[in-house]
Amino acid sequence: MNKLSEFEPIFYPKTLAVIGASADERKFGGGFLRSLREFGFKGKIYPVNPKGTEVLGLKMYPNVRDIPEPVDLAHIMVPAPFVPQVLQDCVAKGVKAAQIFTAGFKETGEEEGRRLEEELVKIARNGIRLIGPNCFGVYCPASGLTLLPGYDFPKESGPVAFLSQSGGYAAEFSREAKGWGIRFSKVISYGNACDLNEVDFLGYLAEDPETRIIAVYMEGPKDGQRFVRLVREVSKTKPVIIWKAGLTQAGARAVSSHTGSLSGEEATWDALFKQSGAIRVRSMEELIDTTVAFLHLPPTTGHRVAVIGGGGGISVAAADACEHVGLSVPPFSPEIRQQLRSILPPAGTSIRNPVDVGGPIIPPQMMQEILETAASVENIDVLIATQAMHYILSGKLSFLFDTSGSFVQDSIRAPIDIKRRFGKPVVMVLPVGSEEVEMLDAERGRREIRATYLDAGVPVYPTLERAARAVAHVAEYYQKEA
Amino acid sequence: MNKLSEFEPIFYPKTLAVIGASADERKFGGGFLRSLREFGFKGKIYPVNPKGTEVLGLKMYPNVRDIPEPVDLAHIMVPAPFVPQVLQDCVAKGVKAAQIFTAGFKETGEEEGRRLEEELVKIARNGIRLIGPNCFGVYCPASGLTLLPGYDFPKESGPVAFLSQSGGYAAEFSREAKGWGIRFSKVISYGNACDLNEVDFLGYLAEDPETRIIAVYMEGPKDGQRFVRLVREVSKTKPVIIWKAGLTQAGARAVSSHTGSLSGEEATWDALFKQSGAIRVRSMEELIDTTVAFLHLPPTTGHRVAVIGGGGGISVAAADACEHVGLSVPPFSPEIRQQLRSILPPAGTSIRNPVDVGGPIIPPQMMQEILETAASVENIDVLIATQAMHYILSGKLSFLFDTSGSFVQDSIRAPIDIKRRFGKPVVMVLPVGSEEVEMLDAERGRREIRATYLDAGVPVYPTLERAARAVAHVAEYYQKEA
Repeated sequence: MNKLSEFEPIFYPKTLAVIGASADERKFGGGFLRSLREFGFKGKIYPVNPKGTEVLGLKMYPNVRDIPEPVDLAHIMVPAPFVPQVLQDCVAKGVKAAQIFTAGFKETGEEEGRRLEEELVKIARNGIRLIGPNCFGVYCPASGLTLLPGYDFPKESGPVAFLSQSGGYAAEFSREAKGWGIRFSKVISYGNACDLNEVDFLGYLAEDPETRIIAVYMEGPKDGQRFVRLVREVSKTKPVIIWKAGLTQAGARAVSSHTGSLSGEEATWDALFKQSGAIRVRSMEELIDTTVAFLHLPPTTGHRVAVIGGGGGISVAAADACEHVGLSVPPFSPEIRQQLRSILPPAGTSIRNPVDVGGPIIPPQMMQEILETAASVENIDVLIATQAMHYILSGKLSFLFDTSGSFVQDSIRAPIDIKRRFGKPVVMVLPVGSEEVEMLDAERGRREIRATYLDAGVPVYPTLERAARAVAHVAEYYQKEA
Repeated sequence: MNKLSEFEPIFYPKTLAVIGASADERKFGGGFLRSLREFGFKGKIYPVNPKGTEVLGLKMYPNVRDIPEPVDLAHIMVPAPFVPQVLQDCVAKGVKAAQIFTAGFKETGEEEGRRLEEELVKIARNGIRLIGPNCFGVYCPASGLTLLPGYDFPKESGPVAFLSQSGGYAAEFSREAKGWGIRFSKVISYGNACDLNEVDFLGYLAEDPETRIIAVYMEGPKDGQRFVRLVREVSKTKPVIIWKAGLTQAGARAVSSHTGSLSGEEATWDALFKQSGAIRVRSMEELIDTTVAFLHLPPTTGHRVAVIGGGGGISVAAADACEHVGLSVPPFSPEIRQQLRSILPPAGTSIRNPVDVGGPIIPPQMMQEILETAASVENIDVLIATQAMHYILSGKLSFLFDTSGSFVQDSIRAPIDIKRRFGKPVVMVLPVGSEEVEMLDAERGRREIRATYLDAGVPVYPTLERAARAVAHVAEYYQKEA
């Protein structure tokens, strides 16, 4: 049996038993059922609870063994001390796999929790695969399976897989994804990983034809060496973006009480990951930013960037930010400078790279011409342009810059147009600016424009630092591969 | 003459000549006049231009020498080749200082620009002090002086001074400040610094009783060693937050074309700043974050933090983020854990430090009790709490968490209450969440709550990473002083 068919009952279950189901939506067992229903699970749901008779119009079964047809997947939500018995019932029923939501196992640090978890492992040897315990399980839009808090996750599938030891982050990433244009093949929250672990899931995702980009949040892998060897293999065909948390002392302590794992030392992990091809990130923000960049930037993405911005120190800061993360900002040749000189006014601007137009608002025609010029430069791989859309939209500087008429619409067009015509990636920086309530209308406009760019395959970030960091990750990955 | 009276005509001019004034608001000379008027300059404005007769109801003078009373400050906006003559007129008139907005000097990298700038320096020796050229000059709410793009800057004064070699950043910081509750004593954009430079201004700000916190953006100081020696002195009484840009190769190139300065090498600067007491930052975001932290955190702020959050990996990530920037997250004693155990449900939570409540939404009563418990711990200096206000306000998780009634109002109160009662600083993390248009209503609520916290002296950041970084800077400063 290959990996894909082995995991079929987990990601595409035709029948799902929810053990510990409840008619009370404020309880986990009720919330999960409602989530599944609202999200649109495509298989059949069998609620199991010895106490009830019906929930959401579905017949309640006292025991999983009473379900009148084969069960692919069980979702177990009963209190920890009852999980072993429930799991034994699952084995008796021939359930293929179970995701154990329940917490209170090894992560408690207490003898009783450890003992319970060992019991699960023993029972699993009798023929059932386990996800968790202490996890949310699987979100897979194609089969309509979702996490407890995932009734409103995107219903469309996409090329990104997220493998997360944390349920909280599995939920957060899935939810935030929507606004970033990220769509998923599978999201897996695998918690304590007492049976199936990061190596198993990564092996599956490597083969999964629905997955093109793999993002990982992990605390304590079960077998770090094997995992890293696998990452090295997988990275050859799919980028593996890894946030390995718990590398500080306090972080390691938190790991132990969160997923009952050992997180290992930072130096050990740095050494392990080096040369593995893994893309290392250090926060949820960086994980999302980098995923967005991999979604839209082509394999030709290299380290050499042209930066276009306006307003004082921005060119200095942009150059610093780019080089700081390993990008290079090669100076333009005299010919290119001459071309730029004909586009920009002479005083208060800079025609080297970065290009500084002298003010935070770049007129559309000027933006178009600068991007065209920069895109034509052979030793430039990526264009990064900053536009103070929040000032344009709020009219903050309207007495200095005439942004009336089709200014906004024309501004939006240039980067998309250049990307299409030159085949060179363009990355936009649209600052959020002041977080005052009175700036909310401008923020609405900025978010709309952001969505337009993302739809057109142009990544958008709120700061140059974040844009540079994301581009650098992509460049690093493809240059290694090249 | 002491520093304060020497700089009186620059920051509190009673008469201001705007040389290169214009009736056209789209031109710099017109925009600046309008800015001054709208902002409410408290002195007398004398527009100077040989071509006009009147602007904004003010008589236009053909030459600064024609102004019928003494002139404290001249703002010069004529094209570069005309600046020397205009400056000579200023000297003849006895003008005390001039801020030269005009660009096209040393920063062009061309012989003509360098020659022109040298000419300015020579003329200045005849008895006028210069700010710039290639700068915006001074924003000082107390005197109503503002920058060209600063018609809408905060009119109230405050304890923060910003010394910026970049005009763009001087404007950006001043404008963004509003939404962060930052108010200024003085903002100084000093550009090429051909006469008055960073050492002069820092010396003034050190003595200025209106200034309590000094923020600096600099590219190429005229006299780095002297500057750092001065920083060492000033740091003893006022925090000096410094963003030294242009430390990468590309950054240094950009510096040269931006303010015609030499930026120096990173290692040299690191060595210079070490032990100087300067608080080093690396972006506008970090500069603002840190300033906000200094505004509200007391001198008792130390490195030992308690972190309260919810939802999976958040406690691990929080611990990592804190230790990564040099904070410590000491584990709670058995007694404290026992207290927390009575507040939190047993499964899926953690009562060590960080405290993980198990979900992203923390009920108000639970937040109150956890904060009280953590605030009572002697070896904890600062409390950092995360609340997923964006989920509460958008109702994203309302089927799992009952957030109706006074949930939001009660949530807001606890951190403010604890800060007041225990005298221990509380820092809030309110994530922005998805940047979708449909989340704008929640964002409005978040911004309102954010403003409430800032008003109450509770710093707010959108991510734990940013909160930790800002707190670490303040702790580092006061621990050095201690």
